[in-house]
Amino acid sequence: MHDKNLKIRCWIEMDQAKFFGPGRARLLELIEELGSLSKAAKAMNMSYKKAWDMVQDLNNRGSKPYVHLQKGGKDGGFAELTPHGSALLQKYRELDHHLQGISKSQEDLLNLI
Amino acid sequence: MHDKNLKIRCWIEMDQAKFFGPGRARLLELIEELGSLSKAAKAMNMSYKKAWDMVQDLNNRGSKPYVHLQKGGKDGGFAELTPHGSALLQKYRELDHHLQGISKSQEDLLNLI
Repeated sequence: MHDKNLKIRCWIEMDQAKFFGPGRARLLELIEELGSLSKAAKAMNMSYKKAWDMVQDLNNRGSKPYVHLQKGGKDGGFAELTPHGSALLQKYRELDHHLQGISKSQEDLLNLI
Repeated sequence: MHDKNLKIRCWIEMDQAKFFGPGRARLLELIEELGSLSKAAKAMNMSYKKAWDMVQDLNNRGSKPYVHLQKGGKDGGFAELTPHGSALLQKYRELDHHLQGISKSQEDLLNLI
């Protein structure tokens, strides 16, 4: 018996380049949860530099900043989502939750595999 | 003004490996339309070998063949979807159509970008 799965992914492109998707959503979730970019990066097995670059790219290309970084301190400073960042994360999660529900309802399609 | 798009993609994995998604759906569509694997490959800017390998992978790993290939003839033979292949393509298209409708309704999310 084979293991069969329907995957549905969503992401936002800006000017034909990826801007926000599952990876960045996870990073924002972890920033929200842990209050620290270095801890969030570690939890994703990602270098601090890569996580920092992601946040910079989001903040620079978006209409308003999504993450507020405060330098210094033993953990490389404090990080938190701005209200704009929280709103983006919440909307993205709602959509993703809806899509994962659709994915679970596609037995007819998987039966053709 | 930036160009912002929400992308939603779906694909089927079998045993954790991609089995069917947008590329293979397009190949089946073109086989259905053109009746030839070489013409379908050409329309996708894909080598005949790559298209042939895709069809073999689908037919071998699926529960039943999706594409029937008849060798010979000036166009490298005739190709058509089996009823099973038509059914898979139709179900996948329906789901994709539904997802593209959802994608177009996410203005709230795009307004946060």
